[in-house]
Amino acid sequence: MKLYGFWRSLATIRVRVALNLKGIAADEQVSVNLLKGEQHEAAFRQVNPQGALPALVLDDGGPALFQSLAIIEYLDETHPRPPLLPQDARGRARVRGLSLIAAADGHPLIVPRVRHYLEHELKLDEAARNRWLAHWTGEALLAMEGHLGGHADTGRYCHGDSVTMADLCLASQVIGAQFFKTDTARMPTVMRIFAECMKLPAFDTAHPLKQADAPQSSSH
Amino acid sequence: MKLYGFWRSLATIRVRVALNLKGIAADEQVSVNLLKGEQHEAAFRQVNPQGALPALVLDDGGPALFQSLAIIEYLDETHPRPPLLPQDARGRARVRGLSLIAAADGHPLIVPRVRHYLEHELKLDEAARNRWLAHWTGEALLAMEGHLGGHADTGRYCHGDSVTMADLCLASQVIGAQFFKTDTARMPTVMRIFAECMKLPAFDTAHPLKQADAPQSSSH
Repeated sequence: MKLYGFWRSLATIRVRVALNLKGIAADEQVSVNLLKGEQHEAAFRQVNPQGALPALVLDDGGPALFQSLAIIEYLDETHPRPPLLPQDARGRARVRGLSLIAAADGHPLIVPRVRHYLEHELKLDEAARNRWLAHWTGEALLAMEGHLGGHADTGRYCHGDSVTMADLCLASQVIGAQFFKTDTARMPTVMRIFAECMKLPAFDTAHPLKQADAPQSSSH
Repeated sequence: MKLYGFWRSLATIRVRVALNLKGIAADEQVSVNLLKGEQHEAAFRQVNPQGALPALVLDDGGPALFQSLAIIEYLDETHPRPPLLPQDARGRARVRGLSLIAAADGHPLIVPRVRHYLEHELKLDEAARNRWLAHWTGEALLAMEGHLGGHADTGRYCHGDSVTMADLCLASQVIGAQFFKTDTARMPTVMRIFAECMKLPAFDTAHPLKQADAPQSSSH
């Protein structure tokens, strides 16, 4: 199994945590430098035609899996212990919905291709670009807070007292918020759950700054 | 079952098609006018704290389901015929991955809250906003084309010869491209599949312009 990722890719964090929780070792981790645009190079397009991270190559010789949530669902189906989705359909719908708020509504607004457009097409200065990053990262977390705060199904984690896919998405989104200096005071439930997640080695060792390809002294 | 949607909401299209395919009648369809910002009003926030469409209220008295892909997976689990996901884990990963390219990487960039930011925060004029809408809608379709064109698993539809969740997402994204006048010449496989989808009544009757709340003569 070969994982194509990058230290600061928020979508890669989610897959890294899932692999950690399930005790699956990726034999090889390939660093695709998003800051240098390596995701657009022909070599990587052969792995994932979309030119986006992460991508997971299985040992069966088939094409790479793509899109973090699709990869996590695959890992959950093929390595069911511990489960990352609840047993009941309603619970699964809630966990998937929470996951999508982060992975679909939040994260895609701040990825390299969008930042590139903001800078080179819209000619936004750095301050305006930083406001964009902080704003949309915060909006997604506020939306999660709206669904998590005071909800009967919220427990130690997003859904009860076991880690689910929603926690992987929440954690990656909060890590983004920390990079972008988003104000997180308005999302106490999100931040409480994030603190719970980061107590777990599976999350802690998946943190961007603990990756082999992370800069030693990072300005993010 | 009560569906909160809006005629031109691309995410609502996907759920509408899923309900049609499975022969599920929503007893009530509630139109939440995105153009007037009704999704932000307190009444709708009680249904979906995120203030986003669609939301599906079941007859069990529980909270509304939210996020289109989570809703579709729920419908597929509780109403398995016809299935919207393949039987094998790899196939499901591909269908979910394709779905997410549209629903996660494409659509969230053009929703009302982002358009509002482009206009009122970034002060972009209408031409620049229209370029944004057409660009990101096209980028997602190009990414889908990269995964679909020439791929052994692509059939009459995105994955083989049966409709899957990926086709619902593809169709909604192409309908967006038509609204925004995106150049679709570069995505022949996507457009061939879209034409196949629109032959089916489940897709045709879900088209925005065929909804009860659509304007009679629409400028979209």
